[in-house]
Amino acid sequence: MRIDVKQCAAILREKDNILILTHANPDGDTLGSGFALCRALMKIGKICAVENADTIPKKYNYLYEDIAPIKFDPDYVVAVDVATSKLLGNLDGKYHIDMCIDHHSTNDEYADNLLLEDVPAACRVIFEVVRELGVDIDKNIANCLYTGLTTDTGCFRYASTTADTYRAAAELIDFGAENGKINRIMFETKSKTYARLERLALDSMRFYENERVAVITVTQEMYRLTGSNEQETEAIAPLTRQIEGVEIGITIREKEDGTCKASIRTFESVNAAQLAKSFGGGGHSQAAACKFDCSVKEARERLIAKCGEFLK
Amino acid sequence: MRIDVKQCAAILREKDNILILTHANPDGDTLGSGFALCRALMKIGKICAVENADTIPKKYNYLYEDIAPIKFDPDYVVAVDVATSKLLGNLDGKYHIDMCIDHHSTNDEYADNLLLEDVPAACRVIFEVVRELGVDIDKNIANCLYTGLTTDTGCFRYASTTADTYRAAAELIDFGAENGKINRIMFETKSKTYARLERLALDSMRFYENERVAVITVTQEMYRLTGSNEQETEAIAPLTRQIEGVEIGITIREKEDGTCKASIRTFESVNAAQLAKSFGGGGHSQAAACKFDCSVKEARERLIAKCGEFLK
Repeated sequence: MRIDVKQCAAILREKDNILILTHANPDGDTLGSGFALCRALMKIGKICAVENADTIPKKYNYLYEDIAPIKFDPDYVVAVDVATSKLLGNLDGKYHIDMCIDHHSTNDEYADNLLLEDVPAACRVIFEVVRELGVDIDKNIANCLYTGLTTDTGCFRYASTTADTYRAAAELIDFGAENGKINRIMFETKSKTYARLERLALDSMRFYENERVAVITVTQEMYRLTGSNEQETEAIAPLTRQIEGVEIGITIREKEDGTCKASIRTFESVNAAQLAKSFGGGGHSQAAACKFDCSVKEARERLIAKCGEFLK
Repeated sequence: MRIDVKQCAAILREKDNILILTHANPDGDTLGSGFALCRALMKIGKICAVENADTIPKKYNYLYEDIAPIKFDPDYVVAVDVATSKLLGNLDGKYHIDMCIDHHSTNDEYADNLLLEDVPAACRVIFEVVRELGVDIDKNIANCLYTGLTTDTGCFRYASTTADTYRAAAELIDFGAENGKINRIMFETKSKTYARLERLALDSMRFYENERVAVITVTQEMYRLTGSNEQETEAIAPLTRQIEGVEIGITIREKEDGTCKASIRTFESVNAAQLAKSFGGGGHSQAAACKFDCSVKEARERLIAKCGEFLK
């Protein structure tokens, strides 16, 4: 069932023990959404926690480091920024999901669904929910919401960023969001290990289809050589699309078990979500992802062939 | 003499043939300021043009490609985003400068001065002037103003970006600014030659002072090897500051005549403008520049020694 912001807030107000789930391999938007909502619900007296399948990268510590961990039996479960329950990773199936708050047009409506498709971040939706809950937005909530806005828009860079997104950012700064600090952590800080990985990744970049497709390959060997790890590859994907003339940028990362995952970045001419969907994946029109149960080499060949079709 | 926005607009309204000067080695803020003001003044019937010392990089074509070039004897000359007349390059001394519209705290007041020091871009000042002139802000003016805002804030990333900056961006989008297109050109597009230069520049990065200082060196030889040129090095400077633990990032670029220029990027702990001032340069608290009449090697040694003093 589709619900609106008012209905969403009304339902949450009636529940007492609320568990919030983020998607696996969590990013700034799912975590910002989760912890902003958790903080807001705690402020109105709810027992609340955020659970996610994977380890949260250290850089997101500030989102939740002051929240004491708590164990309880949830009577209501909300997934945030999770387009389909598969994206919950190993939490998929662990709980019955009652509500989903999201912004992905590919959302498959697996729960009561508050979906605003025309906003660039789930945090933009959560902002409205928090407001509707009547919660005083403090610095911590503002920081969480700002984090989702800025990470899902590439720091207000992508075409998905609207006037409303900038106004929301301004409001969050008025509420105390530390934009300079957050953007520095998210966009201005490379660990030495990431910097090494990035250089190897750039060295691996190859061009196909008259240089309209760029492919970066990140292997387990590269992690070993650089001391980096898969969590750090999140920032690699946008690099593929930055070369002049490239319409589809693909980053293929090899998993420990030899299978792999591809991140796809495009411009208006190609729908990334549709390209990813050809391989059972999904996402947004200009940023999407899919998984392969095969080697990096085979995944690359299959992707390039499909890119050829999409570029026709 | 210091003037305010109202006085600035009143003076401009009285003049007829207005020449606008940008700083040498022009960037998005000085060009956006210049062409936004030029377009606004043309809209109220003035003869107006923008002149600058150096070739304008191609990526800025959209700021002015529809403006027909015009020759006239100016009766009023305005410098925009030019903190000191030396920054006019080879235009310095060619004209008497009547007015300066700027946002640099290091501005040396060489003309009637509209200076707003607490805004992160000269375009933010020009926005107010254009409004005060009573001009309908069209898409082209909005694009010019947005360009300055986004380029001088690193796409709304730097700590200098305030709630007001985001609100100004939202307003400009309402006026038609093509934020997605502009940010793609400014931040998402690397020419192949730049991409090659960037990799050599990253290879050249060395660390000093317990890895608190990172120095990138860009030589004439690198331009030859990559097909790149000095204009493309503008984007290199921010890379130095991105490595975890680095407090001062320096990019030294060798000029054709063997002298060199250093771009300095810092975080709160070090004032970049003061560091640059030690060598006769200037700029902002976290982004500044200075020139050296010596080799890259000697400039590097002098800079590193001075960094040691600043980090104490």
